[in-house]
Amino acid sequence: MATPEEEILRIHAEPLRHFCTRVFEKLNVPVEDASVVADVLVSADLRGIDSHGVARLRRYVQGLRDGTIIARPLEQIVRETPTTALIDAGGGLGQPVSRRAMTLAIQKAGQYGSGFVAVRNSNHYGIAGYYAMMALEHDYIGFSMTNADVLVVPTFGRNAMLGTNPIAIAAPAGQERPFVLDMATSTVPRGKLEVYHRLGHPMPLGWATDEHGLPTDDAGRVLENLKRRAGGGLLPLGGAGELMSGHKGYGLALWVDIFCAVLSGAAYADLVYPRAADGTPLPADLGHFFGAWRVDGFRPVEEFKAAMDELQRRLKNAPKAEGQSRIYIHGEKEYEETERRSREGIPLSPKVAADLRAIGEDIGVPFPTP
Amino acid sequence: MATPEEEILRIHAEPLRHFCTRVFEKLNVPVEDASVVADVLVSADLRGIDSHGVARLRRYVQGLRDGTIIARPLEQIVRETPTTALIDAGGGLGQPVSRRAMTLAIQKAGQYGSGFVAVRNSNHYGIAGYYAMMALEHDYIGFSMTNADVLVVPTFGRNAMLGTNPIAIAAPAGQERPFVLDMATSTVPRGKLEVYHRLGHPMPLGWATDEHGLPTDDAGRVLENLKRRAGGGLLPLGGAGELMSGHKGYGLALWVDIFCAVLSGAAYADLVYPRAADGTPLPADLGHFFGAWRVDGFRPVEEFKAAMDELQRRLKNAPKAEGQSRIYIHGEKEYEETERRSREGIPLSPKVAADLRAIGEDIGVPFPTP
Repeated sequence: MATPEEEILRIHAEPLRHFCTRVFEKLNVPVEDASVVADVLVSADLRGIDSHGVARLRRYVQGLRDGTIIARPLEQIVRETPTTALIDAGGGLGQPVSRRAMTLAIQKAGQYGSGFVAVRNSNHYGIAGYYAMMALEHDYIGFSMTNADVLVVPTFGRNAMLGTNPIAIAAPAGQERPFVLDMATSTVPRGKLEVYHRLGHPMPLGWATDEHGLPTDDAGRVLENLKRRAGGGLLPLGGAGELMSGHKGYGLALWVDIFCAVLSGAAYADLVYPRAADGTPLPADLGHFFGAWRVDGFRPVEEFKAAMDELQRRLKNAPKAEGQSRIYIHGEKEYEETERRSREGIPLSPKVAADLRAIGEDIGVPFPTP
Repeated sequence: MATPEEEILRIHAEPLRHFCTRVFEKLNVPVEDASVVADVLVSADLRGIDSHGVARLRRYVQGLRDGTIIARPLEQIVRETPTTALIDAGGGLGQPVSRRAMTLAIQKAGQYGSGFVAVRNSNHYGIAGYYAMMALEHDYIGFSMTNADVLVVPTFGRNAMLGTNPIAIAAPAGQERPFVLDMATSTVPRGKLEVYHRLGHPMPLGWATDEHGLPTDDAGRVLENLKRRAGGGLLPLGGAGELMSGHKGYGLALWVDIFCAVLSGAAYADLVYPRAADGTPLPADLGHFFGAWRVDGFRPVEEFKAAMDELQRRLKNAPKAEGQSRIYIHGEKEYEETERRSREGIPLSPKVAADLRAIGEDIGVPFPTP
């Protein structure tokens, strides 16, 4: 919001996807995997979740170069029952294994009514909603969770011990758009603090705590503390303590950690993204969890979709709070943004555009001209 | 907290369970069902969730008498796949059908790795955690959700359109206690407002809204508005608007409504607990959703339990925020309360004790003497 409109570069999804695919290929990632990572990144940009889009490309490039992410991992199914499986990602990119894991969950649902796949030894998988939404093509309900870098303090704790651990659920509808809930279990993501810090605005109390574990409005201080692991961090949904039920957000984050990491054998709590004694980064060992349910395991699909439509309309047509004009359904804003950005192109800030261009020059892939 | 300790009656779980069972039997409920309802109610009291314990007995008695709850319903499995099922509760008590539904989910998990059962045409089922915890006996992970009476406003909405729609997850541990998350998706339950109203204290902003849909600290006003359906209500987890991410709590409530009601064909949103044109209450038509996963569908049980213990210890031993002395794991407080109340008896306020005694006299079941 601090960037004047004329400096914003707009690039369409397709050339951006192509650019990212080529970059990953140059880093020895198989083309099918490269195109999946590119698709997940650009999908985030299309949906308006810029923090998880191509702006993140450098971090993946860095990981592939320093060996904390393996370009051609030995990925294997470690355990399997009719409706469950565990996949070891072999330290590879999070997106390709996650796409395969969700595909397996959907296959199992197709055969038995529901299917669930946990993944260990993985890396950042992008937006949780991407995988949950894969179920929509089959008229199934999709589910996706991941643990993540250590940013969130448990209720009454001083230090960050958990990730922003998102939960995503996608359910189909008929005439209306699908319901797509894709939420970090912290009150806000780190990106929100970065915006407030850049603008020099005090944060609302309830977003984050300082090095004593007390609520603070100083975003810069929290970001600096997190970088140095000096204490404090983001607060779980519900804020500090129990008064506004921060323990519920903490509980949701813990649930995600149990399903993604304890159930899979991945690193949990603050053990993710470990470092060697000399500070060298080691493999992240993140874990994910995916699920799918057949709608018609419970109710005919057409009946379900009709009721989804009615539920959405009932909520959207309900009286609004004073000063408000619209009640949203989850996913609605992102679908609208996807339509807009598919038409107008994806807006890249000068900083992100310059960074992508530099990656391209460095690796030998021309950055697309708008 | 306003009641002097000497006026509190303490009754042990067993005689209280027996009393409730006999009351339901007198109302024509089959003895097996009667004892399930009694067990769910007394379990809530043991766990310290007084709002869902025997204090609620009159509402069930009332429902059975006015015909909105059927004592001997025609309950049937409407649809079934290897891992899914839909049960029509026939308008009966929520607890017995829920216990049977969760038992079926556990059986399916035993055979296929996971199992899920939705229930429609049901009534209040008590505490969500009771059913999730049934999975623990098998070393499975349990899941339970229900929609509920209309009390919660959607983000930017003026009127209550959703229930407090709780989510419960229970996962086994080894030496440590199981993880039991059992949370309403509103910031606080109605009972909290009743306590503040009784004490005449202003509520924190972010718990509830007034008839204009604006945050208020006046608990009495919100309770009165809810009774008259005059607008306003409890706020979703995260509070009003999007600043503290109230839309996430709203999204969780909507998720619960979709799984419990849209997937089952029960009443959704504000259509639960309907009334006839003359104001006569009609059957609630609530919906529930239950699930179970075999831990060993993903990882050997002993490995999982050892990691659950380590995760819990890691969190509990982490540094505390200034002024705090303890980090909790979800379920821990309730396990401690269960131990205390199993020893000392369940404390009943004079009002609740008098109400139970009156029900007993009316129906012809002697209330136990402490």
